[in-house]
Amino acid sequence: MDSIHSFDSRHPANLICSLSNQFFHKEWCLGTGGAMSIRDTTTNYIYITPSGVQKELMQPKDLYVLTKNENKNKNRNQPYPYDIIYSPPLKISDCSPLFLACHEHKDANAVIHTHSQNSVLITLLFDKEFNISNMEQIKAMPSGRKDPETGKQINLSFNDNLCIPIIDNRPHEHDLLNSLKDVFEKYPNACAVLVRRHGLFVWGPTIDKAKIYNESIDYLLGLAIKMHQLNIHI
Amino acid sequence: MDSIHSFDSRHPANLICSLSNQFFHKEWCLGTGGAMSIRDTTTNYIYITPSGVQKELMQPKDLYVLTKNENKNKNRNQPYPYDIIYSPPLKISDCSPLFLACHEHKDANAVIHTHSQNSVLITLLFDKEFNISNMEQIKAMPSGRKDPETGKQINLSFNDNLCIPIIDNRPHEHDLLNSLKDVFEKYPNACAVLVRRHGLFVWGPTIDKAKIYNESIDYLLGLAIKMHQLNIHI
Amino acid sequence: MDSIHSFDSRHPANLICSLSNQFFHKEWCLGTGGAMSIRDTTTNYIYITPSGVQKELMQPKDLYVLTKNENKNKNRNQPYPYDIIYSPPLKISDCSPLFLACHEHKDANAVIHTHSQNSVLITLLFDKEFNISNMEQIKAMPSGRKDPETGKQINLSFNDNLCIPIIDNRPHEHDLLNSLKDVFEKYPNACAVLVRRHGLFVWGPTIDKAKIYNESIDYLLGLAIKMHQLNIHI
Amino acid sequence: MDSIHSFDSRHPANLICSLSNQFFHKEWCLGTGGAMSIRDTTTNYIYITPSGVQKELMQPKDLYVLTKNENKNKNRNQPYPYDIIYSPPLKISDCSPLFLACHEHKDANAVIHTHSQNSVLITLLFDKEFNISNMEQIKAMPSGRKDPETGKQINLSFNDNLCIPIIDNRPHEHDLLNSLKDVFEKYPNACAVLVRRHGLFVWGPTIDKAKIYNESIDYLLGLAIKMHQLNIHI
Repeated sequence: MDSIHSFDSRHPANLICSLSNQFFHKEWCLGTGGAMSIRDTTTNYIYITPSGVQKELMQPKDLYVLTKNENKNKNRNQPYPYDIIYSPPLKISDCSPLFLACHEHKDANAVIHTHSQNSVLITLLFDKEFNISNMEQIKAMPSGRKDPETGKQINLSFNDNLCIPIIDNRPHEHDLLNSLKDVFEKYPNACAVLVRRHGLFVWGPTIDKAKIYNESIDYLLGLAIKMHQLNIHI
Repeated sequence: MDSIHSFDSRHPANLICSLSNQFFHKEWCLGTGGAMSIRDTTTNYIYITPSGVQKELMQPKDLYVLTKNENKNKNRNQPYPYDIIYSPPLKISDCSPLFLACHEHKDANAVIHTHSQNSVLITLLFDKEFNISNMEQIKAMPSGRKDPETGKQINLSFNDNLCIPIIDNRPHEHDLLNSLKDVFEKYPNACAVLVRRHGLFVWGPTIDKAKIYNESIDYLLGLAIKMHQLNIHI
Repeated sequence: MDSIHSFDSRHPANLICSLSNQFFHKEWCLGTGGAMSIRDTTTNYIYITPSGVQKELMQPKDLYVLTKNENKNKNRNQPYPYDIIYSPPLKISDCSPLFLACHEHKDANAVIHTHSQNSVLITLLFDKEFNISNMEQIKAMPSGRKDPETGKQINLSFNDNLCIPIIDNRPHEHDLLNSLKDVFEKYPNACAVLVRRHGLFVWGPTIDKAKIYNESIDYLLGLAIKMHQLNIHI
Repeated sequence: MDSIHSFDSRHPANLICSLSNQFFHKEWCLGTGGAMSIRDTTTNYIYITPSGVQKELMQPKDLYVLTKNENKNKNRNQPYPYDIIYSPPLKISDCSPLFLACHEHKDANAVIHTHSQNSVLITLLFDKEFNISNMEQIKAMPSGRKDPETGKQINLSFNDNLCIPIIDNRPHEHDLLNSLKDVFEKYPNACAVLVRRHGLFVWGPTIDKAKIYNESIDYLLGLAIKMHQLNIHI
């Protein structure tokens, strides 16, 4: 692949750049923090952000593009069989094994990772899980169940419990892979994981859904922190 | 109706889209939360937002347009006699019966619904009503009384009490209809209602007025929460 | 005067509109709150905002223009001898007598009035005065003294005390005039006054200075409130 | 030098202006507060902001340009041998001796100074140093050590301690020079210093790095303050 370029604002590379800019201004991706990954369902190409780039300045040419190669040898550092078909003169995000794990095991076509202050603070107030219920915004979150007739995702109801597992941070992001896989197994309906003193990973079937989940979770985390400050039992 | 399109920035469809974008950036309508309805007083068409659309990306073509049909059969799910004359390939907001109730019973030509964090938190600090007085911003709120000479709405004075009733949330938004009608009866001068653990509904004679009321209420809710944190008696 | 129109972004009418928009987005002028006045030192025209207009949408044609007429009869409601030479189909800001008082008695060529939450909250934490010292930002504030050689305003030093008097609110803004005049007499060096449960008035020799003072005061008020929350003695 | 003008958005003068505007909207440089300095590594020209200019309105023509002149006599007020080769009709930032010290002694090509509220508040919670560890964002900060093979800066690891020294403020910014030099000596790996009741200075090998460090530090200061409010041990 020679270059990434499209005039379509809905092209994965353009979406990653416009959302990175939006998330920077939300203060979720300061100091080059955070990362994102989108799988294009027509080409199966996966677009991943590089590390070290200021998120508000991200451009399509800065992204990595990967494609699946089942024949590729896997190893500890490259646990998923993907070839890089476009690489900028930058390091690929250290989160990329985590992103590929979401694409491979969760049928996710988009993964968003932020360092939002709400996501860091909540992991200092809760231990193994963040649970919340009886909040209207929960209805924007997926239950993990599908409607048996339409096959469409069913969202949580107002009274349902939203559970986001919390895992401990590791010095290198790719070392979180085993903990993430444990989450996949123990919380099959989860669409997000909090990493203590680090941030939030959210995945979804489309980038629109992943963004809506990410926004709703951050809103709920923010509410929970304010409730804690106001001595209101969650 | 074939399509919604106007170059007039004051057209109801354009106003809903520009305000949805503004409210998203105020963090009042994250994760597709919130909704809006405007009745065009010349055509009597009612424009209503769909559900599931990211508010900062809302476009006129995404809106529903309804018109009154007195002959229409009413039932539990469609308690008001309106025909849909334009529908996008999206679900109509679950709030639409509430919006129509405001248009029908309160002479409102605009209704704004948000999930602002202030509106959720205040319902955890207060039980049946939120009351505030002796705040300059109260003067931007309507008293519900009209000047006997000019027929114009009289606003509250600095020393007047602003009362916003609080109702409990229900699993489905349209199930709030009976509670809303109770509010209409018990608080005939109210222009807003808080829904516990959910958000705020505000109505007004014009979209400009509804926006000004909504902004002023959210400001007063925010002040009240900060006063609570500072141990200042409201 | 037939109309207000200028392509110069530094024209008082354009500055009032661009700053009103900026202050709206700072959440200082929500729900049509706040007001502003600028005296053009070449023409001596005074430009004043109307009431009831959304500040982010303010346009030059919405402003009032006044000019001095020493022969004009003064009365209780019009205590300063000014003629209106341009009026939009809107009410003039109820603050206008206060603005004219600043122009007349304080040599101010610009007055800014906001409803910032910091300014309201601080009047609930302090009684007659807000005092702060030993903050770098104080150096952006005027001392009220002039350099005997250059005649230029001298700003406060880091160790100096900044004192902002607090007056009680009245039902009508023009009823604050007497309290404001008392402030002029008792605090001859003040460039701002806080009105309890209402907001902040700031004046300066130019609109740039008034804006810098207003910004610096709001920053210091915000710091003082956070210090209070953190149990740090101011 | 007759004028500063470049169409290249990466020219130091343009970067100072666009970042000043960005930092104003982050509320780091209100009321003309804050300052910045960049050394162009090709020409060795140093671009420095003037004092008294609103940061969101800064233009290239407002900046000072300095160049080194080893033959220049040094004195107490001009401790570094630089000639001014372009000067606007404005005072140079009172921080300029501090900026030159960073350029001279720390190999810094960029220095950022802000009055962020986080940076002021943290100096009221901590005495001589601000220390934090076990936060993912720390990994965006430099360790001060270089990779012996590549010669590239090594960043801190998740478990490393980030230490930012705190010095007391002085009435005049240039009087901070001795304290700053003490910091250089005592904390050779530091890339930032907090000034009590004043703000933050951050330096780096490039303006991009200095900006990333500044953003990351402010984020960590903000987290530490919120942790304090939530009674979470840092």
